[in-house]
Amino acid sequence: MSSDRTNWNIKSSRTAKQAHNPIRAIVDQLKLDPNATKPLISLSIGDPTIFGNFNVDPSINEAVTKQLNSYRSNGYPPADGTLQARTAIANEYNTPEAPLAPSDVILANGCSGALEMCVNVLCNEGSNILIPRPGFSLYASLAATRFVETKYYNLLPEKSWEADLAQLESLIDEKTSAILVNNPSNPCGSVYSREHLQAILDIAEKHHVPIIADEIYCDLVFEGNKFFPMATLTSTVPVLAVGGLAKKWLVPGWRVGWIMIHDRNGIFKEINEGLHQLAQIILGPNSLIQAAIPDILEKTPASFFEATIKQLEDNVKLSIDVVSKIDGLVPVNPQGAMYMMVGIEIEKFKDIENDVQFSAKLLAEENVVCLPGECFNYPNYVRFVITPTIDRLEEAYKRMEEFCARHRK
Amino acid sequence: MSSDRTNWNIKSSRTAKQAHNPIRAIVDQLKLDPNATKPLISLSIGDPTIFGNFNVDPSINEAVTKQLNSYRSNGYPPADGTLQARTAIANEYNTPEAPLAPSDVILANGCSGALEMCVNVLCNEGSNILIPRPGFSLYASLAATRFVETKYYNLLPEKSWEADLAQLESLIDEKTSAILVNNPSNPCGSVYSREHLQAILDIAEKHHVPIIADEIYCDLVFEGNKFFPMATLTSTVPVLAVGGLAKKWLVPGWRVGWIMIHDRNGIFKEINEGLHQLAQIILGPNSLIQAAIPDILEKTPASFFEATIKQLEDNVKLSIDVVSKIDGLVPVNPQGAMYMMVGIEIEKFKDIENDVQFSAKLLAEENVVCLPGECFNYPNYVRFVITPTIDRLEEAYKRMEEFCARHRK
Ligand SMILES: Cc1ncc(COP(=O)(O)O)c(C=O)c1O
Ligand SMILES: Cc1ncc(COP(=O)(O)O)c(C=O)c1O
Repeated sequence: MSSDRTNWNIKSSRTAKQAHNPIRAIVDQLKLDPNATKPLISLSIGDPTIFGNFNVDPSINEAVTKQLNSYRSNGYPPADGTLQARTAIANEYNTPEAPLAPSDVILANGCSGALEMCVNVLCNEGSNILIPRPGFSLYASLAATRFVETKYYNLLPEKSWEADLAQLESLIDEKTSAILVNNPSNPCGSVYSREHLQAILDIAEKHHVPIIADEIYCDLVFEGNKFFPMATLTSTVPVLAVGGLAKKWLVPGWRVGWIMIHDRNGIFKEINEGLHQLAQIILGPNSLIQAAIPDILEKTPASFFEATIKQLEDNVKLSIDVVSKIDGLVPVNPQGAMYMMVGIEIEKFKDIENDVQFSAKLLAEENVVCLPGECFNYPNYVRFVITPTIDRLEEAYKRMEEFCARHRK
Repeated sequence: MSSDRTNWNIKSSRTAKQAHNPIRAIVDQLKLDPNATKPLISLSIGDPTIFGNFNVDPSINEAVTKQLNSYRSNGYPPADGTLQARTAIANEYNTPEAPLAPSDVILANGCSGALEMCVNVLCNEGSNILIPRPGFSLYASLAATRFVETKYYNLLPEKSWEADLAQLESLIDEKTSAILVNNPSNPCGSVYSREHLQAILDIAEKHHVPIIADEIYCDLVFEGNKFFPMATLTSTVPVLAVGGLAKKWLVPGWRVGWIMIHDRNGIFKEINEGLHQLAQIILGPNSLIQAAIPDILEKTPASFFEATIKQLEDNVKLSIDVVSKIDGLVPVNPQGAMYMMVGIEIEKFKDIENDVQFSAKLLAEENVVCLPGECFNYPNYVRFVITPTIDRLEEAYKRMEEFCARHRK
């Protein structure tokens, strides 16, 4: 046997070629101006910690410090997570309608890692998965690296971003391996009603397709809305729900996520086993934080979450008030999460052809960054992150108003 | 379009089915006896932290506490790791023979995560990868989940576990995508000479096959041996070297690993890009620890590493002294890492047929756990972890002596 190779010709794998982040290529078109006179304001990064106004609760730091100083939490945790962490998470999310045991919980490397495992266990090369448009770009990347086809179901801005149910159903075929539902939503900020979630579950049930429920923004919901965990609304459709510490506890960098397996009558027997097997490949998140999870879930004071929501609500109110008055921009009122989608009335502008151009020129002229809807497969919208400080938001919107005035017909 | 499905029939993916950990099935045959009178002694878990005698240096805790209390290290790090962490790692491992820039370093979820990325970027379904036998079981699992064929090259106990070079070379064909070299080795505890590493590199060069160098045990080397980073011995063969905090800094649970890309004349251009793309899928390790890496690498005192090595050497000396006197057991002297392979002279025993039976009966009768060689694809050996306290090791070996006496012909 011999290689017959006469030179180095090392190509990256099909997987690596698929793994490119679609946002990157779009964002690369937005160029920072190093000579900008106005200070940069970023409305683009879904990381609430960067502005200094959303900080972790001190009790969380105490919980981690306790583990650090114990010198007993540096070893390998079990692949699916420590029993203590899984028990704490099961207790936190257990309900009569959707009971959870510690063995139904698997820790993962962020909610991203949890989603990767869900896609990996449910989907084969050549199968397809239904994902929302607009939607978080990771879904398509995960599918792509496993050569799984993505089919987009439409969310309707005029119906507060509810799914177009008829169109969603029309996408399902015998190769559909899962429907992914993201509630509350990035980038939409929508929070679905019980009825709407039930309508999606009815379709899943009719066609026997399991649900992946991305509920990383659970509980980040504004007054007048209510978050329903999808699994609590069905006793027949199996659901893999994913969550994590990133958003609610304001520690996205800590990379702690989890999967909650809501089986129904043993339908997920293989999936359950498969997830436990996949967990053994790279093992879960940092042991110190895993050990701190019981304290984090039990001891973070309610006032911390209330303060987070209050601040988000204030920022939303300001954003809607101001942006809805800018001629050419049409914000869609968010009901939760940390984002606001804003429609661009392209026909009103003389020299802006689409959302990518809008973002690029806004950055070049006003040093304000926002992500074009293209990043979420949804052109002619832009997404604003609503977590900057009030004064930054005000300044950003002021610059945007001038920008729009300058470019309007 | 319609699904035509009339019932729930949810199967796990091919990937999940491949992901099973071979160790698990073997270890499941070892049953803990809840009524055992002797206290359990585990020589099976490659986690130095569990016995209380190998603790992290206090300076490392200080480095993490500093980040925790700064409230500035909770946000998303860049997908390939913070520049500060990548710079610190590049500085630590940079040599004239194998220069490293921060952009050559990618942070990962443990060395396991780093290895996963290396396999994912280099190998396609249907290609093959050469891995050592005996060897760390993760290599085969990673290949399996990508449907990559594993070809085993033999390590020779009579040559201190050097590779059988002729047999290794005979495995290479036009579908060979990488040769994985683990030095120092788990499970062998071997540390290769410069000449042996060069001989492997010569084969790689001749057939134009890149190297994955698993150097997670770098620097854990006993007196009289020297560790050579593989990349420093070649100016022509491209090498992906992987490492991490787990072993040298005694924090395996922290899940921090890294890839060091040693390109040669642009051969790895696509691989470099591919790794950066793969990094964007689930993002790297915990942000607090990333932020602490510069301090961890610069400030951990030399005395800490010296004390670790000294303790390991003492344990090795004791282990060799005692175990080599047990009739029926033949230890192979380790030169580094944390393990010792011990041959079983099966023909000397009356009622022990193989290594799995040896481990199972030893556990049942003496409450001592060690991993059968089967776990590393190497029957009729057992692997002892040499990190327990001296008194535990002495007690374990005493029980083993009685056990062997009882079962010898
Ligand atoms: C909808 C959605 N799901 C999942 C994630 C990933 O969460 P994590 O940072 O825990 O990986 C994000 C992050 O922004 C998100 O917006
Ligand atoms: C040879 C070898 N490589 C890699 C690893 C994985 O290291 P990590 O815990 O950083 O994922 C281990 C762990 O035991 C190992 O023995």
